[in-house]
Amino acid sequence: MRNVDKHDVPAVTVPRLALYLRKLRELRSRGVDRVSSKDLAEMIGLNAAQIRKDFSYFGEFGTRGVGYEVARLVDEITHCLGLDHSWNVIIVGAGLMGTALARYRGFAEQGFRLVGMFDSSATVIGASYGAGRVRGIAELEGFCREEKVDIAMVTVPAGEAEATIGRLAAAGVHAVLNFAPVKVQAPDGVLVRQVDLSSELMSLTFYLDRELD
Amino acid sequence: MRNVDKHDVPAVTVPRLALYLRKLRELRSRGVDRVSSKDLAEMIGLNAAQIRKDFSYFGEFGTRGVGYEVARLVDEITHCLGLDHSWNVIIVGAGLMGTALARYRGFAEQGFRLVGMFDSSATVIGASYGAGRVRGIAELEGFCREEKVDIAMVTVPAGEAEATIGRLAAAGVHAVLNFAPVKVQAPDGVLVRQVDLSSELMSLTFYLDRELD
Repeated sequence: MRNVDKHDVPAVTVPRLALYLRKLRELRSRGVDRVSSKDLAEMIGLNAAQIRKDFSYFGEFGTRGVGYEVARLVDEITHCLGLDHSWNVIIVGAGLMGTALARYRGFAEQGFRLVGMFDSSATVIGASYGAGRVRGIAELEGFCREEKVDIAMVTVPAGEAEATIGRLAAAGVHAVLNFAPVKVQAPDGVLVRQVDLSSELMSLTFYLDRELD
Repeated sequence: MRNVDKHDVPAVTVPRLALYLRKLRELRSRGVDRVSSKDLAEMIGLNAAQIRKDFSYFGEFGTRGVGYEVARLVDEITHCLGLDHSWNVIIVGAGLMGTALARYRGFAEQGFRLVGMFDSSATVIGASYGAGRVRGIAELEGFCREEKVDIAMVTVPAGEAEATIGRLAAAGVHAVLNFAPVKVQAPDGVLVRQVDLSSELMSLTFYLDRELD
């Protein structure tokens, strides 16, 4: 039984769903059957009212004084996030960041299958990572059209990001995770999510600075 | 003039501040002097009331019909996030992810100075990246006590993350960004922020899946 209509879930809720899912899976693996919004709020650092509101999109199945069923929440959120089936991912840019991502174990655990890597440099073409050898960038469009590529992770230099994402869009790839430290305007019909590793550090400096004040 | 008392800023607001700052800097670099909460909301994908609430921590300086002063907001948020001075960062784990981070240009632009790298493997000790050579892990505590290390980025294998973070804590490092795909309990007095690259992919799959529904 799936209660959620994804069109009811607002954009700001989506990153929180990933956060809930991680914590709820951890609880499930520790054998915890039920959790209250208050306890979950404390574990995650959000407020309980926000969590109840977010979970309300999955229908009414929290019980006052008893809490939410952990397994059912895991199931609903997994489905809502599209993680109940696998996704084909390519990496464009086989430099340090690209090869680090190719070996990042967290992706495969979530159902993200690396199916190909691409680079323009003759020195890395042919090198082998998890998903087989690095292909030349000239093969990008043909590969994307023949294989079912769901998501491209772009780790090219900043100056090449826009052109690369344009090529992916033209080849029918609808979702891009951009690691290049430059904001790229998304082509029509393509979701581009910008990864900004500096933002993670900024959350730490906020607290460090506050301690020193 | 600094209006913000950091203790008034709730934890959930902090990641949004980094998001605002990136967009506001971009506006400033394009010569935009003022921006309304409504326009900023559209650019970022949040709602305007949320933005007004977040900015209210910086005092009352938005003017109805005229908007917020971009330069002043940049200044206030930069100060609030502790980005008006530089921070010393080390990387523990000189594997693919660690070396990719060492070369990531986005950090230096925000005032994060890489001052050292550490690894336990004899094959990489002595190798040179931006911040000089990779030191042996045995030197970690001595280095942290002698140098002023603000933040450690941990990119060791999952099984070594907890012990590594314990060593950093004992050596007086108060903030850790953990890239190892494992949740680590923060030692007392240490901020541990978990980077989960899979979460970024999950936000994409939510939307991809919704299109296919």
